[in-house]
Amino acid sequence: MRHKIQTLLESGAFGSFIMGVIIFNAILLGLETSDRAVRAFGPLMLFLDSLCLTIFVVELVLKMYVYRLRFFRDGWNIFDFVIVGISLLPATDGLSALRALRILRVLRLVSTAPRLRRVVEGFITALPGMASVFTLMALIFYIGAVIATKLFGSAFEEWFGTLGRSGYSLFQIMTLESWSMGIVRPVMETYPLAWLFFIPFIMVTTFAVVNLLVGLIVNSMQDAHAEESNAETGAYRDDVAARLAAIEQRLDALIARQKD
Amino acid sequence: MRHKIQTLLESGAFGSFIMGVIIFNAILLGLETSDRAVRAFGPLMLFLDSLCLTIFVVELVLKMYVYRLRFFRDGWNIFDFVIVGISLLPATDGLSALRALRILRVLRLVSTAPRLRRVVEGFITALPGMASVFTLMALIFYIGAVIATKLFGSAFEEWFGTLGRSGYSLFQIMTLESWSMGIVRPVMETYPLAWLFFIPFIMVTTFAVVNLLVGLIVNSMQDAHAEESNAETGAYRDDVAARLAAIEQRLDALIARQKD
Amino acid sequence: MRHKIQTLLESGAFGSFIMGVIIFNAILLGLETSDRAVRAFGPLMLFLDSLCLTIFVVELVLKMYVYRLRFFRDGWNIFDFVIVGISLLPATDGLSALRALRILRVLRLVSTAPRLRRVVEGFITALPGMASVFTLMALIFYIGAVIATKLFGSAFEEWFGTLGRSGYSLFQIMTLESWSMGIVRPVMETYPLAWLFFIPFIMVTTFAVVNLLVGLIVNSMQDAHAEESNAETGAYRDDVAARLAAIEQRLDALIARQKD
Amino acid sequence: MRHKIQTLLESGAFGSFIMGVIIFNAILLGLETSDRAVRAFGPLMLFLDSLCLTIFVVELVLKMYVYRLRFFRDGWNIFDFVIVGISLLPATDGLSALRALRILRVLRLVSTAPRLRRVVEGFITALPGMASVFTLMALIFYIGAVIATKLFGSAFEEWFGTLGRSGYSLFQIMTLESWSMGIVRPVMETYPLAWLFFIPFIMVTTFAVVNLLVGLIVNSMQDAHAEESNAETGAYRDDVAARLAAIEQRLDALIARQKD
Repeated sequence: MRHKIQTLLESGAFGSFIMGVIIFNAILLGLETSDRAVRAFGPLMLFLDSLCLTIFVVELVLKMYVYRLRFFRDGWNIFDFVIVGISLLPATDGLSALRALRILRVLRLVSTAPRLRRVVEGFITALPGMASVFTLMALIFYIGAVIATKLFGSAFEEWFGTLGRSGYSLFQIMTLESWSMGIVRPVMETYPLAWLFFIPFIMVTTFAVVNLLVGLIVNSMQDAHAEESNAETGAYRDDVAARLAAIEQRLDALIARQKD
Repeated sequence: MRHKIQTLLESGAFGSFIMGVIIFNAILLGLETSDRAVRAFGPLMLFLDSLCLTIFVVELVLKMYVYRLRFFRDGWNIFDFVIVGISLLPATDGLSALRALRILRVLRLVSTAPRLRRVVEGFITALPGMASVFTLMALIFYIGAVIATKLFGSAFEEWFGTLGRSGYSLFQIMTLESWSMGIVRPVMETYPLAWLFFIPFIMVTTFAVVNLLVGLIVNSMQDAHAEESNAETGAYRDDVAARLAAIEQRLDALIARQKD
Repeated sequence: MRHKIQTLLESGAFGSFIMGVIIFNAILLGLETSDRAVRAFGPLMLFLDSLCLTIFVVELVLKMYVYRLRFFRDGWNIFDFVIVGISLLPATDGLSALRALRILRVLRLVSTAPRLRRVVEGFITALPGMASVFTLMALIFYIGAVIATKLFGSAFEEWFGTLGRSGYSLFQIMTLESWSMGIVRPVMETYPLAWLFFIPFIMVTTFAVVNLLVGLIVNSMQDAHAEESNAETGAYRDDVAARLAAIEQRLDALIARQKD
Repeated sequence: MRHKIQTLLESGAFGSFIMGVIIFNAILLGLETSDRAVRAFGPLMLFLDSLCLTIFVVELVLKMYVYRLRFFRDGWNIFDFVIVGISLLPATDGLSALRALRILRVLRLVSTAPRLRRVVEGFITALPGMASVFTLMALIFYIGAVIATKLFGSAFEEWFGTLGRSGYSLFQIMTLESWSMGIVRPVMETYPLAWLFFIPFIMVTTFAVVNLLVGLIVNSMQDAHAEESNAETGAYRDDVAARLAAIEQRLDALIARQKD
């Protein structure tokens, strides 16, 4: 029995079926944003949505039955589990935002389609290499937020009133959005030397972002390069080494024979 | 007859002539945007424009006559065919936008000039490698648009009222244009936690865009590298392998002779 | 005695302790931005802050006692010295900004955590290679500021009234923030040809920035490449050279013996 | 006589002297933007500026006397000649902008300092490789400007009234400055489908810019790579080839001797 379910779960047809359900569900959840569609087919849509969710739950339960604890060893299974779990939470008034998160189910497309999966895995494997730069940027943001709150907080309550507001404003400034006309010029009307804080902040953070980018490029390049050269160059080098060894052997044989 | 037309079509002089007509037509269509020029030379300009179009049509007809069905095997021919076809559509009032599209004829310059052609072909061959990342971004945009419409649609009708409007606003946010001062700060006045949606959205999409860029760079680099190293390194490696084989042969000869 | 202190200072436990104090101090200085926290625990927080500072001062004094003048040979020690020194300056009313700079102590985390240290060292070693491009950009900014002040200074006092204001405005324009709607379009209402100055300025500065980026990428790549290939390729090449030398030796031996 | 002047012109001391004059002149021209400085030292500054200009003219005349027609073979000499020439033009009221261009003399610093010279030469040699992409972008801009003028010119006179205005607005849109809140959203209130033109325009132009960047990176990398590998790998390869040839010769000698 368990074996039969496993072959079913791992068959291509089942994968395509689940992918179809995900896409159908995605369209359904998209239609729900249209008031007209909801007014016309509201109950039907609700039913179909529940049907999709049921299919996902059944799939997960079957997988858990088949793979037992191994199920939770695969990050993508945990991903599916959490996403389907969110949809099962009761959407009371206070948590109506959770209803909006049901659309995250569409992300299951990523765990189902191998090519998308690989792209996301590529993203994720790139993250640890950037951990130090991220820590550094968090540090810079924290320091920047404390300084900005202390210096400009009292006069510009809305932008720098609390650490959180300062952090948000500094993020906006890092993205260069309206940093001058929107924030720094008004601040400079009260504190003419404010640019001494903001311009170095912009330079340091953009330089850090650029370094992230450079790191990503160099890493990808090395991966690509290593793969490529190991395949071809490796074969060539092994060939040369083998031939040189063979020549040495024959010479040794010649020398040994001459001694006789 | 057909052979003669073919030699004419493929001659350099004919290519230069067509290129000249395209450039002349481009200037003509540019002048049409000036009311003064239209008032002074309107009828003449219309006549010259028709003349240019006629030349293009004749060229296409001749090409189709010469190459027959092979004509449609070349993507650039189909490109020319569609562009000239658009100009032949009747420009009724409802479709006055089509008149503006006549300027697309200037794009024929690309199919005529080999260097521009190669650049565009380079662009196009780069696209399939980015298909997965594009699919992923489309997914992120769809999910983002559904969430934004559900959460902010009722309060910010103009920006997030429908899926389409949300998609447009999210595209604007991805380009970082006025994302904070223009959109997110006003939204945060009603929903103070809106940044929990928008800042991750910005980070994920910019990271995806950066990955597109990194992919492009790595690809171009590998192409360039492969070309370069295959030319030089290949010759060197073949040389080493040949010499090693020759040495082995001579040694075998020596050994064979000694046995005698 | 001095030796004992040195082993203490260089022990892992001591490093972790200092790092803990830094993080605790960082949280403390963050809390100081909250009026509520200051009202409730003000005196306690001041005491704890002084305690942290005392620990830092003692650490520095011990280090100076142990390493004597060698202390100042390490850039990171000077960095710590300056940062702790800033905190010891009296914060009179006129220098209240210095109080805000106390948060810079958190930067000591960088000198304490080796991984962050390496990232910053990477940043700094990248700087000299960009010195020429930076000089060039400074030159472009200076020239641009002089021209903008002379041409637009009288009519747009706020943006281009002095060299400093022009420099700031040009920096804003280089980051592309509101360059057109905010600055150049209003200027063009008075001087219709102003785009002849601003558009080339944007092109030249962005091209220079792009070249900085390209330089950074190429440098990092070469470093990575050199490291990688020296390790593996070097071993292979030494191997081939040694084997070829061995073959030659044996051949020489064979020839010598035949002559006998 | 001519020879003596040449040794003088090419001496390091003379180069440093000219560089000093350029920097002094730069500061002088910067001070001229300050009304206070002009009021206090106006006549002195005018005199010193004339002195600097005289020195530059004398230097150029000497160089022309020494190198004769060879003078004009070096691009940097022509550069100096044009820049000094601009300063000699009479600054009548109609051409008061020319007075502002005197600051361009500071650019002579580039032709005098070899490191800056090399950076600029690097910029310039990178340009031809990007010619095709630039032509393509010019084409896209021209087509975009004609379409925008035809479609939106009548309703948005200020942004798209003429080809020139459309070109400027499209450049602004390409830099992503206020493209949506400032331009496209207002246009969409009149023409709801305007995004069908603007979003593809943004995508195509940013993609083209990205391709420029990728091209620059790949080129610089190849240059760096070629230089590096030619130096080291070349020596190694020559060594291997020479050794293999030596081994073959000795084997031939052995075989020849055995035949005897």
